[in-house]
Amino acid sequence: MGMVGGGKGAFIGAVHRMAAALDGEIELVCGAFSSDPDRSSASGQALYLPPNRVYGNYEEMILREKQLPEGERMDFVSIVTPNHLHFGPAKMALENGFPVICDKPLSFDMDEAYELQRLVRQTGLLFALTHNYTGYPMVKQARAMIRNGELGKIRKIVVEYPQGWLSTKLEDDNGQKQASWRTDPKRSGIAGAMGDIGTHAENLAEYITGLKISELCADLSTFVDGRLLDDDGNVLLHFENGAKGILHASQISAGEENDLNIRVYGEKGGLQWRQMEPNSLVVKWLDKPMQVLRTGVGELYPEARAHARIPAGHPEGYLEAFANIYRNFAVCLRARLQGREPDPVYLDFPTVDDGVRGMHFIQKVVESSNSSQKWLDF
Amino acid sequence: MGMVGGGKGAFIGAVHRMAAALDGEIELVCGAFSSDPDRSSASGQALYLPPNRVYGNYEEMILREKQLPEGERMDFVSIVTPNHLHFGPAKMALENGFPVICDKPLSFDMDEAYELQRLVRQTGLLFALTHNYTGYPMVKQARAMIRNGELGKIRKIVVEYPQGWLSTKLEDDNGQKQASWRTDPKRSGIAGAMGDIGTHAENLAEYITGLKISELCADLSTFVDGRLLDDDGNVLLHFENGAKGILHASQISAGEENDLNIRVYGEKGGLQWRQMEPNSLVVKWLDKPMQVLRTGVGELYPEARAHARIPAGHPEGYLEAFANIYRNFAVCLRARLQGREPDPVYLDFPTVDDGVRGMHFIQKVVESSNSSQKWLDF
Amino acid sequence: MGMVGGGKGAFIGAVHRMAAALDGEIELVCGAFSSDPDRSSASGQALYLPPNRVYGNYEEMILREKQLPEGERMDFVSIVTPNHLHFGPAKMALENGFPVICDKPLSFDMDEAYELQRLVRQTGLLFALTHNYTGYPMVKQARAMIRNGELGKIRKIVVEYPQGWLSTKLEDDNGQKQASWRTDPKRSGIAGAMGDIGTHAENLAEYITGLKISELCADLSTFVDGRLLDDDGNVLLHFENGAKGILHASQISAGEENDLNIRVYGEKGGLQWRQMEPNSLVVKWLDKPMQVLRTGVGELYPEARAHARIPAGHPEGYLEAFANIYRNFAVCLRARLQGREPDPVYLDFPTVDDGVRGMHFIQKVVESSNSSQKWLDF
Amino acid sequence: MGMVGGGKGAFIGAVHRMAAALDGEIELVCGAFSSDPDRSSASGQALYLPPNRVYGNYEEMILREKQLPEGERMDFVSIVTPNHLHFGPAKMALENGFPVICDKPLSFDMDEAYELQRLVRQTGLLFALTHNYTGYPMVKQARAMIRNGELGKIRKIVVEYPQGWLSTKLEDDNGQKQASWRTDPKRSGIAGAMGDIGTHAENLAEYITGLKISELCADLSTFVDGRLLDDDGNVLLHFENGAKGILHASQISAGEENDLNIRVYGEKGGLQWRQMEPNSLVVKWLDKPMQVLRTGVGELYPEARAHARIPAGHPEGYLEAFANIYRNFAVCLRARLQGREPDPVYLDFPTVDDGVRGMHFIQKVVESSNSSQKWLDF
Repeated sequence: MGMVGGGKGAFIGAVHRMAAALDGEIELVCGAFSSDPDRSSASGQALYLPPNRVYGNYEEMILREKQLPEGERMDFVSIVTPNHLHFGPAKMALENGFPVICDKPLSFDMDEAYELQRLVRQTGLLFALTHNYTGYPMVKQARAMIRNGELGKIRKIVVEYPQGWLSTKLEDDNGQKQASWRTDPKRSGIAGAMGDIGTHAENLAEYITGLKISELCADLSTFVDGRLLDDDGNVLLHFENGAKGILHASQISAGEENDLNIRVYGEKGGLQWRQMEPNSLVVKWLDKPMQVLRTGVGELYPEARAHARIPAGHPEGYLEAFANIYRNFAVCLRARLQGREPDPVYLDFPTVDDGVRGMHFIQKVVESSNSSQKWLDF
Repeated sequence: MGMVGGGKGAFIGAVHRMAAALDGEIELVCGAFSSDPDRSSASGQALYLPPNRVYGNYEEMILREKQLPEGERMDFVSIVTPNHLHFGPAKMALENGFPVICDKPLSFDMDEAYELQRLVRQTGLLFALTHNYTGYPMVKQARAMIRNGELGKIRKIVVEYPQGWLSTKLEDDNGQKQASWRTDPKRSGIAGAMGDIGTHAENLAEYITGLKISELCADLSTFVDGRLLDDDGNVLLHFENGAKGILHASQISAGEENDLNIRVYGEKGGLQWRQMEPNSLVVKWLDKPMQVLRTGVGELYPEARAHARIPAGHPEGYLEAFANIYRNFAVCLRARLQGREPDPVYLDFPTVDDGVRGMHFIQKVVESSNSSQKWLDF
Repeated sequence: MGMVGGGKGAFIGAVHRMAAALDGEIELVCGAFSSDPDRSSASGQALYLPPNRVYGNYEEMILREKQLPEGERMDFVSIVTPNHLHFGPAKMALENGFPVICDKPLSFDMDEAYELQRLVRQTGLLFALTHNYTGYPMVKQARAMIRNGELGKIRKIVVEYPQGWLSTKLEDDNGQKQASWRTDPKRSGIAGAMGDIGTHAENLAEYITGLKISELCADLSTFVDGRLLDDDGNVLLHFENGAKGILHASQISAGEENDLNIRVYGEKGGLQWRQMEPNSLVVKWLDKPMQVLRTGVGELYPEARAHARIPAGHPEGYLEAFANIYRNFAVCLRARLQGREPDPVYLDFPTVDDGVRGMHFIQKVVESSNSSQKWLDF
Repeated sequence: MGMVGGGKGAFIGAVHRMAAALDGEIELVCGAFSSDPDRSSASGQALYLPPNRVYGNYEEMILREKQLPEGERMDFVSIVTPNHLHFGPAKMALENGFPVICDKPLSFDMDEAYELQRLVRQTGLLFALTHNYTGYPMVKQARAMIRNGELGKIRKIVVEYPQGWLSTKLEDDNGQKQASWRTDPKRSGIAGAMGDIGTHAENLAEYITGLKISELCADLSTFVDGRLLDDDGNVLLHFENGAKGILHASQISAGEENDLNIRVYGEKGGLQWRQMEPNSLVVKWLDKPMQVLRTGVGELYPEARAHARIPAGHPEGYLEAFANIYRNFAVCLRARLQGREPDPVYLDFPTVDDGVRGMHFIQKVVESSNSSQKWLDF
């Protein structure tokens, strides 16, 4: 794999590299780690890459790698830049025949999103978006249970993503690179918290329930003086089957770490999953005792079992879930290279279509928040 | 005390009696336990009351008790009937000089609520409404912390009250008295879940934060076919200081017991309290480790200390919190009878004004849910 | 009921009174609240008792009450004094025909314990010992599950009772009445922590499992300089069926509140109960998902259902469990007075035999701790 | 790195490989994955190794690799075989100049352990033992807090390692390779559960507290009929500073997953850590509210910060902790190769001395369990 972005000081680049490395199936062979060539070079050296595979920019990387013989050149591109820098390398990679793994949200705006979707369809290349939370075994268990009707018809969904790290104007501090681009409309897009983490919540809710949001009513806020994008948002949801929901995401919920969680209630029971204790899935029933399903314990669905690596009680976390996206992508890519169908249990990673949906969500919650009309179609 | 309602099969009547009895400060001396005289009589006997203090209806009780000598006659009236039967006995009690403890919500509709408020102001009599969840020590600790500025300016409030017991059409079963009147517009009023438990959530949020809701946007639903009132509701909130919030209450959140909980986030930190583990108050800070404050441990505010009865680690629950409403009412009543001021720490129980506010909340969420206008003033 | 002890400043006296009052089945009619007559009198007045039913000592109370007509005189005696003052009033009450509820441990030493056991057998009077933790609904559920074989043959039992309140030499402070007598061999007996709370753990383990301890190996310690009795103890256990166990109790486990808890493992599954979250019973299975049984949810055993008062999710705590001992005692006493058999589900409170067993446990752990022999018979 | 053992069907070999791969600092370059050459070869192929670096046995691997030029040959050997096969490859690796990472327990018996200790001292080579639980950030935080005196003098330690997976005679099933060798005295040594997981508990207690066990009294059991080694053990501990403790480990605690946990109480406070929720460290104080320290939140000790990879709230688990052993080993090895001192914060992995201590623990608990003498020196 070749990486675009993820030089020193980046958070998510290192995550992608660890996720890719974990299973011994993917090797980092080249990269354009920064728009600053010296920085890119230093990053490449720290990653033990040969100097001739460390490039000064993504254009160079894609063109040069393309000229290397098959088997030697990178098999796909991983894009871990800020939002406004997803489109360029993704487009060029696709146009030059390289599959892509891209960080979320898909792009800077809807136009870019649609163009990438078009290119993926046109080229037929694999494209994964790292909505990494869908990689957890217990998330897959929840999805399988609902698909299998265990909870009956779904009535209510509550999905939350509270963080507190932007409770102060962190973006004003030097060296707070993460805060800086996420709160900058020129790099992040039209939304702040909603784009960064609200889309994870939206994706998780639709992934687990298999239901699509059909209408929404949003109330976004910017609590920190001088901040240019939303740092908190509360959204009422209608789903296509008649289910109702609430989605809220926040980066000013002081003291919260990364508490993505979801509750889904159907006619027969409800379930709850929290990212910060990801190996438990609490299931409550109308007429039976509450159960706590655990990664690796008892009769889980094949989808859940296939995404755990070690026996029950040895906690698997964020990196392992992230690695499941990479592993599944690699499994599918290898199958394709070998001209066979992959095991369907691994045919599960977020795609460019999820990315388009996420961008659409961003657009609609911003539009709704500015509107006096109660419900907007989604 | 004399009780109106609360005969056999009633849930909340027994709760009121246990709450009143716990501290040995209040004695049940008479009652009109049912509109059916035989039933009332049987209930009185089961409660070891002398037959001459068990009345066939509340009118009789109030008139006869009034004629008994002071010291012998009941000191106040406790009203534990369904919503549509609060107004009659409350009005008559006040008009005849008896203080009142009344179950929530205050009344059947706004007109009744205003009339009771007027009467309380006119007579100057004590009137308590059993929004019992404000009786928990850790709720009082949360309120004191926020009032004292420990969390800084409040930005976000999330209050939830999920239950699952009405996931099926329980009201159709004979003997499901509790389900039956709560889902009947003739007895419950214009709202179902929102009236029964949404008002508890609204009251708790305003009590803990000291902030008033200024605008709301509601989405109520009836999920169970044939049910006449809402069984689920999601509400976006604006508070007068600029804080934003979410309130949701549900009786179809399958598998949930009685999971009232609240999270409040300010500029400096956040706190979380759950009714089902009421002796813990989780406090999270921007720059310090999370704390778990516990009933009876360390330096709590006087308001919290005064409402616990036993040393830390001996769990106090729902009845003890409910008993705090009764105990405080009794302390204030006794002080008044003795012509002195009560210790201010006990001057804390929900009043008729909280009741009017609750009724107003019911009216507004129903109105908002039926409106295409996004925000309604509250 | 008439009370011996429990004047101002006492902890457990107030607990007994609240427990007795909760269900409206028991009335406090008289008391000898202190060995200091003025103190007793003041306590009686604060409890709204008529002065002529407040006695200067227990001898006077028992003799005078005996002379009152049936129906007016107290029906039983409740003894809430420190350990060394249980025997006198208990013996005299029994000898004069009064049933007894006595705080634990039963007595100051084995001789007293055997004598009380003999008297109970001779008189046939009811005698309850307030090992109150057996009053929790989920403890009764655990017992019923094990008795019914749900866990299979029991193999391992871990019971713990950590507290931290005696981490410093609290007994040296004036006004620390609770610490003072508990650490005084003249009032507490030969054991400190082991007598005060170790016996609760022993009783709980035998109650829940239905197994008797057959051998033990103890290691008691006194960590606080100058303290005269043990403040910590660790004990290995053998049970009569071959099960193995661990019991530890401590009053120097700094920061712990009152964390009595037990885990029991059988061939088919294990269960866990914690006093500080008493409405949950965690059950883990070999081949099935973990369950969390909850007071009031689903199909519990009749013993569990009969000892809860309010619907699921309204937490019931320490006082409610304590009240179950009093309620069951009252139910049995009333049945006996009316010449009928009580409902067997209520025929469940700790007796003088549990008390003798507890005293024996105290003796054996002290003996074992001083011995170089590994195992002592129990 | 070159690996000995860890072919298909092995649990711990894959764990070591993922742990080694995570940080991109260590590359698997060769292996002798099985004593069966075909199996070794197939494993090597599945791991994308060139056939000429996959060896039929460890002797061949060590000798051939030694002849490769520096920079090309493996830098160290990782041994992931069952207990009885640690000694051979470890000894030969050391004798041929290769540093070693070895799974625990160190060896089959004490003689082997002492010989390895002697060789490590003689050669001066790095030797790490994968007591992986010491790799968790919050374990390092606990150790630093205690070393820094935050809890005061330590009084009591409770360390537990309950599992339930050997509740039935799993070793009789074909394909249960993990169960089979662990319960076989010829491969596991003189202890079963105590060797496999009891040593982890012993190591964790001594690591966190910095105290050494000085005496012990053990009670080992074999509950499953026909099993040849202990499957449960309860041990009383004395520590050199006067602290008392309890250690229990079990593989028949039905329903338990891998619940290693420890509580440590000092004069000023206590702390609790559970492996299954490894990112929280609960700290309780005598006079302050309980705190929950979290990986990545607030002011942790440098040792804790250096061993976390991602921001707070993104759970890191077992593999990340395991990877910390490998990463620290790699950091120290690289520093040594470059002739400089490593950052002391990384100079932290279990050594051959910890391994000798673990083997000694195994010997003593077995001896104690068979003895009628209460205390044995350790």
